[in-house]
Amino acid sequence: MSSLVFLDPAYPAGRLADINAPQLPVTAQGVTRGDGVFESMLYTNQAVRKMEAHLARLAISAETCDLVIPDEHRWRSAIDTAVADFDADGGAEEAVVKLVVSRGSTDAEQALCWVTVSPAPQLGKDQRETGIDVLLLDRGYDSKIAERAPWLLMGAKTLSYAVNMAALRFAQKHGAQDVIFTSSDGVVLEGPTSTVLLAQRDGDTKRLITPMLETGILPGTTQSAIFDAAEQYGWELGYGPLRPEDLYNADGVWLVSSVRLLTPVHTIDAKPLRLDAELHAELSDLSDSIR
Amino acid sequence: MSSLVFLDPAYPAGRLADINAPQLPVTAQGVTRGDGVFESMLYTNQAVRKMEAHLARLAISAETCDLVIPDEHRWRSAIDTAVADFDADGGAEEAVVKLVVSRGSTDAEQALCWVTVSPAPQLGKDQRETGIDVLLLDRGYDSKIAERAPWLLMGAKTLSYAVNMAALRFAQKHGAQDVIFTSSDGVVLEGPTSTVLLAQRDGDTKRLITPMLETGILPGTTQSAIFDAAEQYGWELGYGPLRPEDLYNADGVWLVSSVRLLTPVHTIDAKPLRLDAELHAELSDLSDSIR
Repeated sequence: MSSLVFLDPAYPAGRLADINAPQLPVTAQGVTRGDGVFESMLYTNQAVRKMEAHLARLAISAETCDLVIPDEHRWRSAIDTAVADFDADGGAEEAVVKLVVSRGSTDAEQALCWVTVSPAPQLGKDQRETGIDVLLLDRGYDSKIAERAPWLLMGAKTLSYAVNMAALRFAQKHGAQDVIFTSSDGVVLEGPTSTVLLAQRDGDTKRLITPMLETGILPGTTQSAIFDAAEQYGWELGYGPLRPEDLYNADGVWLVSSVRLLTPVHTIDAKPLRLDAELHAELSDLSDSIR
Repeated sequence: MSSLVFLDPAYPAGRLADINAPQLPVTAQGVTRGDGVFESMLYTNQAVRKMEAHLARLAISAETCDLVIPDEHRWRSAIDTAVADFDADGGAEEAVVKLVVSRGSTDAEQALCWVTVSPAPQLGKDQRETGIDVLLLDRGYDSKIAERAPWLLMGAKTLSYAVNMAALRFAQKHGAQDVIFTSSDGVVLEGPTSTVLLAQRDGDTKRLITPMLETGILPGTTQSAIFDAAEQYGWELGYGPLRPEDLYNADGVWLVSSVRLLTPVHTIDAKPLRLDAELHAELSDLSDSIR
């Protein structure tokens, strides 16, 4: 049902392993300290989407954390092995390919690196269709933190996601399904596992806006791909600083991510948002066309 | 050399396992999301120090993260089994007992819980004797964050320590050995793996001060034990809001933690601090007396 491949110098194509068996020592610092990095990609129609962008972001995350990881070529070989194994075992219409790096048990030890492939969760596919209700939650950081505090690892996708998961649980306990983080100075940031996108219709002009990276958010690979496609279809593109008012005044707000894709936001803090059906249809097509 | 015991309903005293063998699935959310909690205790002279306080803090951390964990009795049995195995294999003068909880591979699954015992790192023992140089680094949060943003898990000891580890690496690259975090509004918080303590001598009065918990720091079990002991020896006790000036003007500054114990700070941002030898000797005795 799911596949696992370790990157291992002794196995050029990666080492297949049993995902249901114990595989990691309890002493790995990815386990004991959340000290590692990861990526999640969508595998559908026999292709892993945006592999280049994800491998590039993984390399940046690793560098930010002083982790030495195998080169792109070895990751691609391991991914090939993993998806082939997954397909041989039945496959799925949509699958998640995860790339994970854990610091070793000691700093001198090589990082542990692996790839998993598993069916995409039904919940995400449902939410993509039905849309979601979202809470605005304070991330605690101000919007200038990234430049003055590199040790906070802003913009790196680390394994230390406990706060992201706690924010999602908080939303679920309060009648919502997801979260948009804001900075302590009131700037719109990102979702715990997604990027914020908003659209404005202004006469014949269609504008797509996302928070600017300088706020310390993760560079969204899906946002970036949608922006590239939208530009070709005549959309204007913009980069915030965005305020919550901008979300309430938009003609559509979406959370975008690699596996759940373009997911419309119906309400923020229980206040209904506009969703321009034509803009949504057009962006859905753009999102579906990502390769 | 090191021991590992899993908490397992089928083994009332805990299940001994090989710490050098793979033991965890790559899908456990403690691995993929840093979604779990932990404690580190000192085992020396045939006793695990402050076990009650650590088990209490583990329970609070777990509750903060909505993790259901076994009761204290089962943890104590597993700890007994682990230290007995460690001692049978040669033991060590000082050892670290780690309690770890990882959320399972799915939310419905039981949390994975284990105990490890390993020799205390030589580096910490050396630093306790030699003292350390420290950098002040901005933690990015303001000092009021804990009360308004429970989803940030302030005061819970989670496995998501990537930022703590990055801050320590940043210090090491800049000629220091450790860090004291400050809030974005300039209040002294804590070390990445320790609590800040400062002493003031005022005529015949000896005063011990630590940052107040309302700033969102972790409640220090060692700080608390030293405070209890110091009070009996006539020290006045105080709880900050502390500013960096308070550290520079103190008669001694220490980072305290369960394994490294009372570690004097020689410089902060390369500025030398006072260290009253008599106060240091007295606090070292108090620290050594913790049971």
